[in-house]
Amino acid sequence: MALDLYQYIASIPDYPEKGIIFRDISPLMADGEAYQEATDRIVAFAQDKGVEMIVGPEARGFIVGCPVAYKLGVGFAPARKKGKLPRATIKAEYDLEYGKSALYMHKDAVKPGQKVLVCDDLLATGGTIRATIDLVEQLGGEVVGCAFLVELAELNGREKLKDYDTLALMKY
Amino acid sequence: MALDLYQYIASIPDYPEKGIIFRDISPLMADGEAYQEATDRIVAFAQDKGVEMIVGPEARGFIVGCPVAYKLGVGFAPARKKGKLPRATIKAEYDLEYGKSALYMHKDAVKPGQKVLVCDDLLATGGTIRATIDLVEQLGGEVVGCAFLVELAELNGREKLKDYDTLALMKY
Repeated sequence: MALDLYQYIASIPDYPEKGIIFRDISPLMADGEAYQEATDRIVAFAQDKGVEMIVGPEARGFIVGCPVAYKLGVGFAPARKKGKLPRATIKAEYDLEYGKSALYMHKDAVKPGQKVLVCDDLLATGGTIRATIDLVEQLGGEVVGCAFLVELAELNGREKLKDYDTLALMKY
Repeated sequence: MALDLYQYIASIPDYPEKGIIFRDISPLMADGEAYQEATDRIVAFAQDKGVEMIVGPEARGFIVGCPVAYKLGVGFAPARKKGKLPRATIKAEYDLEYGKSALYMHKDAVKPGQKVLVCDDLLATGGTIRATIDLVEQLGGEVVGCAFLVELAELNGREKLKDYDTLALMKY
């Protein structure tokens, strides 16, 4: 029988600020069976999409995306914060509550026409994932899906992803 | 026949500063076959050690360690920079060229007696990995091995790891 993955999410009230309930995926990752099952559900979602590359934003996107890449036998390319990639990069900005941030990818990280699955732990307002998609598309890649462990539905991140096939294993 | 993994490392002269050759693992991760083979070699190294948990430092340690955890069917726990973990943490400091830095883990990330494999992309001076080992041991875990994609042998990081069974898939 399938595991109840919700049991492996720690909910932390008033973090990082008052009124926010932080959904912490670390108990899920720390449990071998739960981590494997979450990965396998994303792999099943990816199976008929012809995925050729996984892209995930720093840093929890690596924890979600890398085992999916391994299981599918495809590569993984990170979207990283400023100053973390040693070769020529492209950039996509996104809005934070106050101000802006940006993500970067190596210019050769995705090849034109490559089918990409974008993975992250959490879909909140969707800013990070939208920047990640922008990077893939700047490089000529085709985003064939987005996969998350957790979606915070009331923040409407899915609105930014309405053109993409999107999976969230858990919803709050 | 086994892949020549060295072909998938990009060497960048004078990065991040003059006189340093940076060994960039991103072409290896981007190639599904090479990423799988590197992972499988670490899994083979881990196989007879009774590994119950993988620990990796932020952020490239996640890319190396997470597929190993998935394949072994064990959990993954991250060692992170300040302010990234929402629950109660422990801390280990390490020296940088100028000044100090620190890594943190959740207090419940490793259970007493748990056998842990520590994974990272690169063994250089060994400061980061030594701090990661300290965190695991503070929590009562037993480090049964350390695995890296790349070792920069002239920086003598292995000296700090002489009490641990250590694998590096490539040496420069």
